[in-house]
Amino acid sequence: MLRRFGSARAALDVLPRLARRGDRAKTVTAVTRAEAEAEFAALHRAGARLVCWGEPLYPSALAMIEDAPPILTVLGQAELLQRPMIAVVGARNASANGRRFARDLAAALGRGGLVVISGLARGIDAAAHLGALETGSVAVVARGVDVVYPEENRGLHDALATRGTVVAELPLGTEPQARHFPRRNRIISGMALGVIIVEAAARSGSLITARFALEQGREVFAVPGSPLDPRSRGCNDLLRHGATLTENAEDVLSLLEPQLRGIEPLRPIPAVAIPAAPHWPTPGVAQPIGDEDVLELILEKLGPTPVAVDELVRQCQLSAAVVATLLLELELAGRVERHPGNLVSLS
Amino acid sequence: MLRRFGSARAALDVLPRLARRGDRAKTVTAVTRAEAEAEFAALHRAGARLVCWGEPLYPSALAMIEDAPPILTVLGQAELLQRPMIAVVGARNASANGRRFARDLAAALGRGGLVVISGLARGIDAAAHLGALETGSVAVVARGVDVVYPEENRGLHDALATRGTVVAELPLGTEPQARHFPRRNRIISGMALGVIIVEAAARSGSLITARFALEQGREVFAVPGSPLDPRSRGCNDLLRHGATLTENAEDVLSLLEPQLRGIEPLRPIPAVAIPAAPHWPTPGVAQPIGDEDVLELILEKLGPTPVAVDELVRQCQLSAAVVATLLLELELAGRVERHPGNLVSLS
Repeated sequence: MLRRFGSARAALDVLPRLARRGDRAKTVTAVTRAEAEAEFAALHRAGARLVCWGEPLYPSALAMIEDAPPILTVLGQAELLQRPMIAVVGARNASANGRRFARDLAAALGRGGLVVISGLARGIDAAAHLGALETGSVAVVARGVDVVYPEENRGLHDALATRGTVVAELPLGTEPQARHFPRRNRIISGMALGVIIVEAAARSGSLITARFALEQGREVFAVPGSPLDPRSRGCNDLLRHGATLTENAEDVLSLLEPQLRGIEPLRPIPAVAIPAAPHWPTPGVAQPIGDEDVLELILEKLGPTPVAVDELVRQCQLSAAVVATLLLELELAGRVERHPGNLVSLS
Repeated sequence: MLRRFGSARAALDVLPRLARRGDRAKTVTAVTRAEAEAEFAALHRAGARLVCWGEPLYPSALAMIEDAPPILTVLGQAELLQRPMIAVVGARNASANGRRFARDLAAALGRGGLVVISGLARGIDAAAHLGALETGSVAVVARGVDVVYPEENRGLHDALATRGTVVAELPLGTEPQARHFPRRNRIISGMALGVIIVEAAARSGSLITARFALEQGREVFAVPGSPLDPRSRGCNDLLRHGATLTENAEDVLSLLEPQLRGIEPLRPIPAVAIPAAPHWPTPGVAQPIGDEDVLELILEKLGPTPVAVDELVRQCQLSAAVVATLLLELELAGRVERHPGNLVSLS
């Protein structure tokens, strides 16, 4: 309509008339100026911004898909959206090995110059975001960017909202609903040069993302797994149907190499007030590596009774971002457990 | 030579003259009648027979390869060699999951009408033979059919020598040598409609069999595995290069269906004189073993894919209590991870 009518004003003026032409039950009206201003104020308060189709920050790959979202709400480092991206998605109930693989893969892809996109779900998604936090990590969520879900990913959400990017098609305040997820998946694949599936059961959501990727002409990569593991069923099935077998980042980077030529290497995301790189200790290994003293400081303040994260921040005299990262680390090590209301306890 | 000179007698007569024509350092002479009779007597004592190229029992697929062995020594049910066959091969140091998969796969292929061939090595080979013992199992060995190797497979060797078939290109009494193995592998693939690789490290012997299969125009099937498991490296690599991804017998049978049409179903092999299920000893169990050895024994059977503790107990032939203690030890050392449902994996 912008193209057809020359300006937003002209397009909006003609909108009710156009809508009446069809047989729509409801008339179509633009929001009022007051409503728009209230929404902008809310975005400002949330630290978010809008990125519209056609604007320079709008991801160029996404702009080309058939049903590209007209407006994205963006929290965090919006510049990441201009870089070449790769999606890493997979099972929520991923195995420890699957998570480790996803994290290491995402980190290696980041070093290779790609921004990593995922869906900020539990399991593979969370691991992928974590691995790419230093080099560029984008979460596309099926809710408002200001709604944290699942609660256990609050630490990761906060880290992405500052060092990475959280993107949503849905307006602020939208709660997650099952029907939102498939449409969200089209954005994940649409923003990416390719989609890597790490652990996916038969008929799982990740396979929907893979199907979108195929429809959008993106590469589909799948990580093979044992036929005895039901979490490999979906990936093996994709491989059977022509997905690129993926054992490491090199498998991905070498295939995408022609599309990456001439792209300058990523600058590392400045680690605002986050002292140590996020680290994911191996389960069962007693000692997490990293800033031992600070971890100890947090651990000694935790017990089996849930405590508010804000309270922890105050007591540890560390920045909220530092505490969030460390809690994430402890959580992934299985030592800390999340509770509703931004509470944590020892697990 | 039979074709050219009309009879074995005529061919043998002309042999020394033909050999002199070239620049061979050694003259070529046929064995004497006495030597041949001694060999026949030995075959008779061992319960073996010779099957020559061109005879009805000679496997028809093998007869078509370029360097088909002129004579096979056969122990057991020679009629199995006339049936359509499939090879199942893989790692000697296979994981417990890999062995179980190979055994179940071989059994299902047997029910599907195929005789299963393998190399009677430890690990995947032994498991495949065991799984197909009731429906038809053929071992092609890189030694004389009367030489048992490895010693731990004696029970399986004896079972195959009666209910199945043991086949060798080399004469009676030949001890196994490293250089024999690749040539033996060409017979395994040559006898088969296809070769299934279950767990194979990079640059392993099973990959030689796969290469022969390709050269001989046989199907190559590979079982996918986690990139974190080095025993999957070879299989994943084969998949990358076009092998058929194999998760179950159906994947194999459906591809071979055109070649199997009209083949009558296998009769079950009568269980002659074998009182119990063939015994499957584990290396090192015979001698008294130190704790380290037992730990190694368990570690060897574990991979990144979770396996049932019961299955481990069975395969290690140790008491459940001993296995539980050792697993605990490994877990405390951070080498083993627990999963719901009494499963464990390497961490």
